[in-house]
Amino acid sequence: MKKAVVLLSGGLDSMVCAALAREGGYWVVALTVDYNQRHRVELEAAKTIAKRLADHHILLPLDLRAFGGSALTSDIAVPKEGVGEGIPVTYVPARNTIFLSLALGLAEASGARDIFIGVNALDYSGYPDCRPEFVAEFERLANLATKAGVEGERITIRTPLLDMTKADIIRTGMRLGAPLHLTHSCYDPVGDLACGQCDSCLIRREGFLKAGVEDPTRYAVG
Amino acid sequence: MKKAVVLLSGGLDSMVCAALAREGGYWVVALTVDYNQRHRVELEAAKTIAKRLADHHILLPLDLRAFGGSALTSDIAVPKEGVGEGIPVTYVPARNTIFLSLALGLAEASGARDIFIGVNALDYSGYPDCRPEFVAEFERLANLATKAGVEGERITIRTPLLDMTKADIIRTGMRLGAPLHLTHSCYDPVGDLACGQCDSCLIRREGFLKAGVEDPTRYAVG
Repeated sequence: MKKAVVLLSGGLDSMVCAALAREGGYWVVALTVDYNQRHRVELEAAKTIAKRLADHHILLPLDLRAFGGSALTSDIAVPKEGVGEGIPVTYVPARNTIFLSLALGLAEASGARDIFIGVNALDYSGYPDCRPEFVAEFERLANLATKAGVEGERITIRTPLLDMTKADIIRTGMRLGAPLHLTHSCYDPVGDLACGQCDSCLIRREGFLKAGVEDPTRYAVG
Repeated sequence: MKKAVVLLSGGLDSMVCAALAREGGYWVVALTVDYNQRHRVELEAAKTIAKRLADHHILLPLDLRAFGGSALTSDIAVPKEGVGEGIPVTYVPARNTIFLSLALGLAEASGARDIFIGVNALDYSGYPDCRPEFVAEFERLANLATKAGVEGERITIRTPLLDMTKADIIRTGMRLGAPLHLTHSCYDPVGDLACGQCDSCLIRREGFLKAGVEDPTRYAVG
């Protein structure tokens, strides 16, 4: 059975991405990085989702708060004024490069040749490491960097959500019967509630609205 | 003052690389990854070296033993039959991709635009992620992946040892008055002694011999 490493954050996109990998017939190794993020509740979501969608789950601690430089890994406040232009302060320096590198190491060590990452470049926060050119470049690197790549076993980075809107992703989740209600998107939760105002909440809410699907999230600000 | 992130393992190459960064006038942020490697003594070496050569040192735990797939991160034995052809089992899947990604995150978060890594492609173990084409590709990725790169602040990967033999590296260390005696190279130490038989010991010993410099290392097998 073909094996894939799927980066699983606990958010909506990575969950649907895992469900698509599963639908594609892969044995799914889910990798979640505990990067000491502000929204630690997503780690609990990832664990619950992995029980449903993964054959094996690795939760790897990596304290990116040691580097800081982001609202998600330092005391910088999460913006609540709507999705703006440019790259917001919730950008975590090199996060997807780090995560894909880790997925690459795990893939090579475990015999997987496909890596799934739930990036999308339509309804997103403008992060440079979610763009198709970044993913294509990482795939080139992966095949130069590894024993597997050098020996001719092609490593492929799969991004099934790349050209989907958030509404498309939600509809795809519905079609697959995937557990949308277990996902967590908010960057700055208030107790058990999503804040309802950060970029991630705003994009999620609009996605559910456009998809015509009821959003199972409980928001602090309605 | 210009700032650089230097990957510092505690080995000979990364120490000389740090000394060269310092000679180049950089404020040096050293990054050491505790990847739960077999030769944990190199972490102690890195700490001692950092006190001499770095302005700031980060020791970051990242348990690559959770992935395995290498003699350095699992129970696979370290080969002692001489440096062979092909990529040896001491290769750690995607290690330099992971380390450079972390250095990239730290560089971006701390305002450094130069990253030093002590790879060399002459007297080395045949790892794919030590080759010049790998480094060039990573640099391309770094400038696509980051806010800094996208906003036109060029990220540069510096590899001053790339075309040096091990003897050249040792001579360079001598010229700089760098603490060669504090470095640790052995993959499979026997108590306080280097094994004297792994690839890393063999390459080191031959380097000192060719450089005409006394090797300060104490070996278990002479």
